[in-house]
Amino acid sequence: MEEKIAVYPGSFDPITYGHVDIIKRALKIFDKVIVAVAYNYNKKSLFTPQERVEMIKEALKGYTNVIVGSFGGLLMEYMKEANAKVVLRGLRATSDFEYEYHMASMNRSLSKDIDTLFMVTGKDYFFISSRTIKEVVSLGGSVEELVPENVSRKLREKFVQQKRGAK
Amino acid sequence: MEEKIAVYPGSFDPITYGHVDIIKRALKIFDKVIVAVAYNYNKKSLFTPQERVEMIKEALKGYTNVIVGSFGGLLMEYMKEANAKVVLRGLRATSDFEYEYHMASMNRSLSKDIDTLFMVTGKDYFFISSRTIKEVVSLGGSVEELVPENVSRKLREKFVQQKRGAK
Amino acid sequence: MEEKIAVYPGSFDPITYGHVDIIKRALKIFDKVIVAVAYNYNKKSLFTPQERVEMIKEALKGYTNVIVGSFGGLLMEYMKEANAKVVLRGLRATSDFEYEYHMASMNRSLSKDIDTLFMVTGKDYFFISSRTIKEVVSLGGSVEELVPENVSRKLREKFVQQKRGAK
Amino acid sequence: MEEKIAVYPGSFDPITYGHVDIIKRALKIFDKVIVAVAYNYNKKSLFTPQERVEMIKEALKGYTNVIVGSFGGLLMEYMKEANAKVVLRGLRATSDFEYEYHMASMNRSLSKDIDTLFMVTGKDYFFISSRTIKEVVSLGGSVEELVPENVSRKLREKFVQQKRGAK
Amino acid sequence: MEEKIAVYPGSFDPITYGHVDIIKRALKIFDKVIVAVAYNYNKKSLFTPQERVEMIKEALKGYTNVIVGSFGGLLMEYMKEANAKVVLRGLRATSDFEYEYHMASMNRSLSKDIDTLFMVTGKDYFFISSRTIKEVVSLGGSVEELVPENVSRKLREKFVQQKRGAK
Amino acid sequence: MEEKIAVYPGSFDPITYGHVDIIKRALKIFDKVIVAVAYNYNKKSLFTPQERVEMIKEALKGYTNVIVGSFGGLLMEYMKEANAKVVLRGLRATSDFEYEYHMASMNRSLSKDIDTLFMVTGKDYFFISSRTIKEVVSLGGSVEELVPENVSRKLREKFVQQKRGAK
Repeated sequence: MEEKIAVYPGSFDPITYGHVDIIKRALKIFDKVIVAVAYNYNKKSLFTPQERVEMIKEALKGYTNVIVGSFGGLLMEYMKEANAKVVLRGLRATSDFEYEYHMASMNRSLSKDIDTLFMVTGKDYFFISSRTIKEVVSLGGSVEELVPENVSRKLREKFVQQKRGAK
Repeated sequence: MEEKIAVYPGSFDPITYGHVDIIKRALKIFDKVIVAVAYNYNKKSLFTPQERVEMIKEALKGYTNVIVGSFGGLLMEYMKEANAKVVLRGLRATSDFEYEYHMASMNRSLSKDIDTLFMVTGKDYFFISSRTIKEVVSLGGSVEELVPENVSRKLREKFVQQKRGAK
Repeated sequence: MEEKIAVYPGSFDPITYGHVDIIKRALKIFDKVIVAVAYNYNKKSLFTPQERVEMIKEALKGYTNVIVGSFGGLLMEYMKEANAKVVLRGLRATSDFEYEYHMASMNRSLSKDIDTLFMVTGKDYFFISSRTIKEVVSLGGSVEELVPENVSRKLREKFVQQKRGAK
Repeated sequence: MEEKIAVYPGSFDPITYGHVDIIKRALKIFDKVIVAVAYNYNKKSLFTPQERVEMIKEALKGYTNVIVGSFGGLLMEYMKEANAKVVLRGLRATSDFEYEYHMASMNRSLSKDIDTLFMVTGKDYFFISSRTIKEVVSLGGSVEELVPENVSRKLREKFVQQKRGAK
Repeated sequence: MEEKIAVYPGSFDPITYGHVDIIKRALKIFDKVIVAVAYNYNKKSLFTPQERVEMIKEALKGYTNVIVGSFGGLLMEYMKEANAKVVLRGLRATSDFEYEYHMASMNRSLSKDIDTLFMVTGKDYFFISSRTIKEVVSLGGSVEELVPENVSRKLREKFVQQKRGAK
Repeated sequence: MEEKIAVYPGSFDPITYGHVDIIKRALKIFDKVIVAVAYNYNKKSLFTPQERVEMIKEALKGYTNVIVGSFGGLLMEYMKEANAKVVLRGLRATSDFEYEYHMASMNRSLSKDIDTLFMVTGKDYFFISSRTIKEVVSLGGSVEELVPENVSRKLREKFVQQKRGAK
């Protein structure tokens, strides 16, 4: 039997417990899961690709069969280099679904032998997104129950830096 | 490495090329795919469970690693008997997504170690459903490009029988 | 210039002011509008096809360039007989949209030269459907502002008959 | 200050923990909550209106400021008799939303001074519906964590009766 | 009986007749409504928080039991200071619904005793948003029927200023 | 019979085969189709309005009854100048639908005699948008099967220029 590898791409700016939930469940299904940080220097991000990779690695410490990487080009190119045929994506809501449907269709038109599988985000995490996490922290709120401990710490540091920078 | 088994449940009343597309793609990802006809004697169906199983078997002739079965109870019970941990479902549209989201959440609450994965139906099949297939045939239309040849034949036979019965 | 004919198909069980709004607006765009009552003897309806056609004719009295017809088979066959190339449909909501998207795609796969155009239902009518109209009347409510006067009268008669029949 | 009364209408066939969650939260906001079982003898239901009312009363035992009633006609008539101006509805998903949007708009057109408020169903209950509850029990599954204990018991009794009746 | 206070938060950049409709209807249901302008100096807005508060006050002149305020932090903090337990939000469409569902779920996870209620925007206003209002005015269109008179005037002034600034 | 003119407005930044599909189908239904490039100097675009008009003209070379124009103000003003009463829009997904519904409603409130008709994007193009096209090219991917040849060439040129500019 061939090794089953799933690539789980995303911005992960930063990783949340919603993402961690998907990864843990994926590890029961696939032999190996590659968490792939997508970066695009034309888009603003709070954390650098390197910071994001580090935070994910720390958050997943202790899990075997997980690899954390990053890519700046087309996902389909990254898939070929990784010799992986399954893209894994989490779905939280209807609007996610439409965007993902379009991306999965487009990717299939680019690479016939690569396919996308979806998992629905667990009910405890479906209202968490990296964007709302950053918004809550920037307004002084706490997100300790929503992101891994190291991410929570990094977020506080980042916003303290930003405030200092603004002065 | 453990054998990766996916159960693809549905009414399949009857199987369409949309279903066949999902099954073919699933075979590239999993080691074995079990197509499981769900029957419920409280719900009307055009074909008997036995007829549906036969039609699927004929439509998939030549494919290895596919098993066709049926079940009348809870999907989660069937999963345990089959020793399978992955439910596979196709998504065609937003409304599918919501129903599937609820079923996947409910199933996870019933069986923590079983998970549901989704594939989006290919663009050539996303507008095909068993229900519209039956409606088109009942109105005298042709569905030859939408269902396997043996299904198309069976559908014509069924509606000829029904008309005779109605006289 | 060729005559522009639009076929506006539906159950019209019964016609509402929402349908009338679409028809009036379509008459400003097309040279001729054919309102086509779809009937299917396998589906229950409150009014017979003949009653539905009569109600529409009376509701549209005074409008020229409207033809009211009916069909029991495939819409695409009816389109060919009517020598019409445009199907017109009203959209009220997201869920309408998905169903209509699938039907329009299926019809295009059956007949490449026939196309479907959609109009959004006016804001005063977007919450009206034949189904809710029937429900309100069956519970003793008034729908005088939601359907043409002759339809309102017919609905009351129908439910009086049904109650007598039930005794 | 005027007493704030909310009417929470539904089929409640049967009541679930999702409904109970809405009721408990509503009691913190309104002075009185009327749970109103809607019955319609043209629609099939598993439990009689009387059984449904009894089950709700037992499930809510100990809660003050809750009244359980039933109605067979238009909701707006019931609202007037109860001298209540607020309809309360739970929302679970996009498709709920659209239906509710239409009903709320229609009700506002029938009674200008009555308004509808919505609450989103809690994350632990958003995948529970009376329909799926009945389906799971009919297939032999357990719903003890999803409905009050008395409802769970009644559901088992009902399905045992039905099976005996079927013999 | 406790006083029932609802907080109606939003950007109100600027307030429209859609917002006014929600506020008027809320005043029939709650003893007091606090309209709370959310500002975030990291996000661009056409009007300053102070201008937005002033415009709302003028638009609601004559209404009692309405308070207009503003906040720059977490909504849940503002709720606690205002001693209010009900967040009120208007819903216009499916996409609104999803975003609101997530925010309401997140807020409930942050503050268990605060709940969100939704009202659907009236049919005459459901297509109005602050964003489209600004777009129409910036293109030279008139929005007199869509926003209060004082807002319409302020919008014209603002865009005249911007054009002068651009020269 | 009056000449039937449809205006097909959009950003077309750049035109894709999805747009071309809509235009070709519209030409079978209307006597004349005006493709109208909407520009807004407050919004960033990859191509200038003039470049977009040129690309559309070249992509539609050989088609008669098509006019390509541009406008910077309100669509409704442009419609009046063009003496056209039909706005044509393509629909790809539920989220498109909601936005379009709102715009069509707003436009109808501004100009009672102008109406919007929708066509669903063909299945081979429904996952193509100008935005994803630009993203794929910026990441080094090929979009030759998704846009006309001249557009594909212009896109490559543009991104080469941008990279040079960035150095």
